[in-house]
Amino acid sequence: MKAEIITIGTELLLGQIVDTNSQWIAERLAEMGIDLYYKTTVGDNVGRLKEVLEQSVERADLVITTGGLGPTQDDITREVVAEALNRDLIKNEAALEEIKSYFSETGRQMTENNITQSFLPKGSQIISNDNGTAPGFLIDSEEIILASVPGVPLEMKAMISDFIIPYLQEEHKLDKEVIQSRVIKTCGIGESSLEDKIDDILREQTNPTIAPLASQGEVKIRLTAKANSEEQAQQLIAAKEEELKKRIGDYIYGYDDDTLEGVVANLLWEQELTVATAESCTGGLIGDRLTKVPGSSRYFERGVISYSNQAKMDLLGVTAETLEEYGAVSAETAQEMACGIRDRAGVDIGLATTGIAGPGGGTEEKPVGLVYLALATDDGVEVHKKIFKGHRRRVKYLTSQIILNLLRKSLF
Amino acid sequence: MKAEIITIGTELLLGQIVDTNSQWIAERLAEMGIDLYYKTTVGDNVGRLKEVLEQSVERADLVITTGGLGPTQDDITREVVAEALNRDLIKNEAALEEIKSYFSETGRQMTENNITQSFLPKGSQIISNDNGTAPGFLIDSEEIILASVPGVPLEMKAMISDFIIPYLQEEHKLDKEVIQSRVIKTCGIGESSLEDKIDDILREQTNPTIAPLASQGEVKIRLTAKANSEEQAQQLIAAKEEELKKRIGDYIYGYDDDTLEGVVANLLWEQELTVATAESCTGGLIGDRLTKVPGSSRYFERGVISYSNQAKMDLLGVTAETLEEYGAVSAETAQEMACGIRDRAGVDIGLATTGIAGPGGGTEEKPVGLVYLALATDDGVEVHKKIFKGHRRRVKYLTSQIILNLLRKSLF
Repeated sequence: MKAEIITIGTELLLGQIVDTNSQWIAERLAEMGIDLYYKTTVGDNVGRLKEVLEQSVERADLVITTGGLGPTQDDITREVVAEALNRDLIKNEAALEEIKSYFSETGRQMTENNITQSFLPKGSQIISNDNGTAPGFLIDSEEIILASVPGVPLEMKAMISDFIIPYLQEEHKLDKEVIQSRVIKTCGIGESSLEDKIDDILREQTNPTIAPLASQGEVKIRLTAKANSEEQAQQLIAAKEEELKKRIGDYIYGYDDDTLEGVVANLLWEQELTVATAESCTGGLIGDRLTKVPGSSRYFERGVISYSNQAKMDLLGVTAETLEEYGAVSAETAQEMACGIRDRAGVDIGLATTGIAGPGGGTEEKPVGLVYLALATDDGVEVHKKIFKGHRRRVKYLTSQIILNLLRKSLF
Repeated sequence: MKAEIITIGTELLLGQIVDTNSQWIAERLAEMGIDLYYKTTVGDNVGRLKEVLEQSVERADLVITTGGLGPTQDDITREVVAEALNRDLIKNEAALEEIKSYFSETGRQMTENNITQSFLPKGSQIISNDNGTAPGFLIDSEEIILASVPGVPLEMKAMISDFIIPYLQEEHKLDKEVIQSRVIKTCGIGESSLEDKIDDILREQTNPTIAPLASQGEVKIRLTAKANSEEQAQQLIAAKEEELKKRIGDYIYGYDDDTLEGVVANLLWEQELTVATAESCTGGLIGDRLTKVPGSSRYFERGVISYSNQAKMDLLGVTAETLEEYGAVSAETAQEMACGIRDRAGVDIGLATTGIAGPGGGTEEKPVGLVYLALATDDGVEVHKKIFKGHRRRVKYLTSQIILNLLRKSLF
């Protein structure tokens, strides 16, 4: 099966946004063993979009378009797909119902131009949109399989994962060579140290390929295997993964879509432990991450964002003496914060952060990026000192990453 | 001048990397007033690249290609450009000299296949590469202006900035038409309602163009003007902006790189007001956003993440009666939370959120997505009820967006 992607939107041609959609779709197609031959970006222009569509329909078996499904005048995808395929654009009652119920459920006002979103090329199957107003659609004919989804990444991804991929797999029995990947996620080690540890494995890579990729506060390793079946590809990956685990197992916190907070949540859940946070420099970020996970009320009891010294004393029992003698950014304060929140919340584990996120507030003795992290448990309290480089948001994020990783390691 | 970009590389079609090059080039073209009509991505395949090149040369005045200039067998750009333009591929002595000197300067060993990098289509001007081995080239003929640069972003950017842009400006007397944009950021109104309010302005748009773009919890409006000078373009934008402000001024919170939290921070700062948060369903996200802004300790005193009922009573003084009679997710609880944090922190403004972020925990009476938001000030307390659709992270984010917008509006 030969595929093409068409991304639609003048903002893409003006360079106002980076097209990450087509990369994501390309990856999904590769995983299914579908060959992607071309990606084309075209603006909100009827004539040019029509030409591009006609050419793709001519060349390919499968065309996926993104963008141009909104309610505004420059959203032309529905209309031009209909033209390019010589189909009428007709009101799709199911689509209209979906749009109506989206508005009634969210208590928002539906306007006249939302109705235009229910006009789809004749013969379209509607692709539901749980995250917005624009329904997608799929046409499966002798001539072409064509699917149009919105440009909003969240909406696009849900439609491809939940509808288009299952549809293609079921209706068009895909076989042949498959590509499978697995991402190993590590925390607590830098990219070059990690590469050093697996240098020979990296040099000898063939199938699967092994690609380390550093991102904020973690290093991912992508294993990609080609084989005649999904099972075979997974076996190739599993074998290489075992080899890697022997070298860097301590740093691995998860795989693929795992998040550090999700992994921590599962560990807390399994061990029936509760946690509370006392955040200064992170400002609520750790609480936010711990509560991103559904069901977080089972392990997260409370948090305190003790930004001022007064709050540290009122809510955590940090003493005025400690603050005066060592300062708010100190190992002593971090320790009292972690113990204070643990005691007062009556939880198993107390976490605390205090530091200088910058860009202001640094001194020679206590530079910007200096952070103390503390973890209080039944066994006592451990305090770590870190100095992070970079801007404010990075310091906050790295702090949250390190403390979640400390929490993870304490749960083994 | 009509332009096209062709990005070349099978890794792009496998989704292994995101193409940020074409966005960067697109921005540069827009700044020069060159119209970009298409971007095409194609793999390292002679036949398909040739077709794409021929089509672009036919349609456009200027074609820029990235990628495929390396020394390996799958680097086919030099050869296929020569074929598509019916030119011989000949050894370019200047290019060979550059490659040799790059190797001698970096102390690396030159291999046989590096010599192939010096074979360029006849009539090419070489584009020096200070950052790598692959020279780029430019062909300027009656038929087409075609420039080929490497896919490595650093090398590509240097060639475009240092050679291609000055070349085009000097040799092709671009009448210095410039494109300027301004993004107006709104919150508290959906895309279609907003468009309804400015329907006639949208329909009559010419220069500047006006493009609404919805993203999570906000709608942006991009104004893009073309003119002979930056100043003129800015005047065109300012005039249209005034017109828009009369219709939708209430919803506008900022411009371009402004963030809602940044705007709120400035208002708090100017008015010397302090704020504290009591978060339940948002789990610390509001605190995190308020403390993303440098200097946030001047207005943010503390926050409480009162996830459990016990925490709501302990830290905010919510009464057991209220929790029992109305539940944790209720207008009454939200109100007591906002007043409680305001009183206890001794701040000017107290913010509170309580809701059901999902996916579990919903009932018929209190569905997933139900959120109460409260804002307590000197003037009393206002409570708002919202029902958001979507997944957990979306519910949290939209809640934080709405309450920051309420805070912003309260500061006028």
